[in-house]
Amino acid sequence: MDLKEKYGEWGIVLGATEGVGEAFCKKLAEGGMNIVMVGRREELMREKAEKFKAEYGVDYKVVRADLSQPDDACDKIFAATEGLDMGFMSYVACLHHFGRFQDVDLATHEQCLNVNVISFLRIFHHYMKDFAAKDRGAVINVSSMTGISGSPFNGEYGAGKAYILKLTEAVAYETKKTGVDVEAITLGTTLTPTAMKNFPKGPAGDAVVKIALTPDQVADEAFEKLGHEMSIIAGERNKASVHDWKANHTEDEYISYMGAFYEN
Amino acid sequence: MDLKEKYGEWGIVLGATEGVGEAFCKKLAEGGMNIVMVGRREELMREKAEKFKAEYGVDYKVVRADLSQPDDACDKIFAATEGLDMGFMSYVACLHHFGRFQDVDLATHEQCLNVNVISFLRIFHHYMKDFAAKDRGAVINVSSMTGISGSPFNGEYGAGKAYILKLTEAVAYETKKTGVDVEAITLGTTLTPTAMKNFPKGPAGDAVVKIALTPDQVADEAFEKLGHEMSIIAGERNKASVHDWKANHTEDEYISYMGAFYEN
Repeated sequence: MDLKEKYGEWGIVLGATEGVGEAFCKKLAEGGMNIVMVGRREELMREKAEKFKAEYGVDYKVVRADLSQPDDACDKIFAATEGLDMGFMSYVACLHHFGRFQDVDLATHEQCLNVNVISFLRIFHHYMKDFAAKDRGAVINVSSMTGISGSPFNGEYGAGKAYILKLTEAVAYETKKTGVDVEAITLGTTLTPTAMKNFPKGPAGDAVVKIALTPDQVADEAFEKLGHEMSIIAGERNKASVHDWKANHTEDEYISYMGAFYEN
Repeated sequence: MDLKEKYGEWGIVLGATEGVGEAFCKKLAEGGMNIVMVGRREELMREKAEKFKAEYGVDYKVVRADLSQPDDACDKIFAATEGLDMGFMSYVACLHHFGRFQDVDLATHEQCLNVNVISFLRIFHHYMKDFAAKDRGAVINVSSMTGISGSPFNGEYGAGKAYILKLTEAVAYETKKTGVDVEAITLGTTLTPTAMKNFPKGPAGDAVVKIALTPDQVADEAFEKLGHEMSIIAGERNKASVHDWKANHTEDEYISYMGAFYEN
C-alpha cells in the first residue's frame, strides 16, 4: 500500500528499536514513508534506519528518548517532528516489572506508568490533534492480552495495556467516519527480544513459544486491517483463545489462568 | 458481618461523599468499623458521618482532599490514617470529561488521569503494603462497564476504569490465599447523583434509568461477595449484558454500541 500517498510523508514509532516497533518501521518504509524512530538505544536504531534507507530510499530521524521521563521525552519527540508532514504514529513501547503489587516499590510502578500510560496519553493526544486537524493520518497502538485478562504478578503492566486498549478503541470509533484511521492491536505472545527474555522456563514457556507470532506477522495483520477494523487481536490462535475465555469462562477463571501461568 | 472483627478498626473510602462511596461507608458502619471519608465537600461528608455515628456508634474522620492533585491528596490522606488500625479501603472516586479525545485539552485529560489512575495507584499501593504486612484487610475497588467496552466520547474515563479493573483483578489473585480480600466490582448504570446528571436525554436515557441499580444494591452485592469472588459485575442484568457482548459480538461491535449511545 502507498502509505505516503494515503497518510503523509512521515511516520513515528515509539519503541522502534527492535521487535514489533522495528517491524512497523519496515512497513512504513515499504509504504514510502520516512520514519522517526524513538527509543533508548540510538546507535542500534541508526543502524536499522540506515538499512531501511538503503533498501527503500526513505529518509529517517532517530530520537533518543526515555519514555519513563514524560516531560523530557515529549519535548524531544515533539521538537523532532515539528514542521514535518506527519501521517502515522504507533505506540509500541512498554515497561513492566514482575512481583506482587505491594512488594514492588511505588517508584518502580510509577516508572512503568510513565511509559505505559502517561507518555502514551501525551503522544497519542499530540499527533491526534494534528491528524484530526488535517483529516488525514493513521494510528496503530499496541496492547496485550494481559490487558484483557489481567496479569497477576505483572498487574500494573496489564492495567496499563488495558488503558491503551480502551482509549485507542474509543478514539477509533470517534474517528471512524473521518480521514484518520485508528486501530488497537492486542498481542499474545510475540517472539520479540524482550518477550524471549521473560518466558517462564519449562513446559509452560515451551508451549507458549510454539504458538507465538513473529513481529512481521503482527505487522502484516496490523497494516492489512488498518482503516477496516478498530480493535483486533493478532493471530488466529489468540483470537480463538480470547473468544473462548470471554464466552465460556468467568472473569475469576480467566484471572486464575493467567495467575497460574507465572506462579509456576 | 462483623467487619471490624475480621478486618480491623478503620476503613477508608475514597470518594465517600455520596452515591456508591456513601453506601460503602454505611456498610462499614453497620459492620462496626470506624470510617475515614475522603472527598471534596467537607461539610456534606461531616453531616453524613454524624448520621453514621449516631446510628451505629462508630467513630469517623473526614479528609477534604482533591484526588486530581495526587501529591497533596496523598499527603493528607496518609497523615490522617497514620497509626490507625486500618482494615479496609475502597476507591470509588472518578472524574470524566465528555468530548472527542483530541478536542479535550491535555490538562483536562491529565486531571482525570490523576483521579482515575495516579491517586488510585498510590493509595491502593499504600494500604496494600499495610494489609499484606498484617495479613489482614480488605479492598473493594470500583470499575465501570465502560472499562470493559471502551467508551467513545468519554474514552479516557473508560481507559482509567479498565486500569483500575485489571490492576485490582491481578492483586486479587495474588492475595487469594492470604488474609487480605481484594475485589473489583464493575458497575453498570447506577443511580448516583453524578450519573443522573449525565444520562443522555430521551429514550436511550430513560431505558438506562429503568434498569439501573441503586448504590445500596451495589454495596450489598460488593460486601456479600468480598472474600469469595475476585471480579464481579454488579447486578444480574449487567452480568448478562456483558456476557452477551463478550460471547456473541466482536470487539468492534461492542465499541460501536457504546459509541452510538452517546452520539445520539
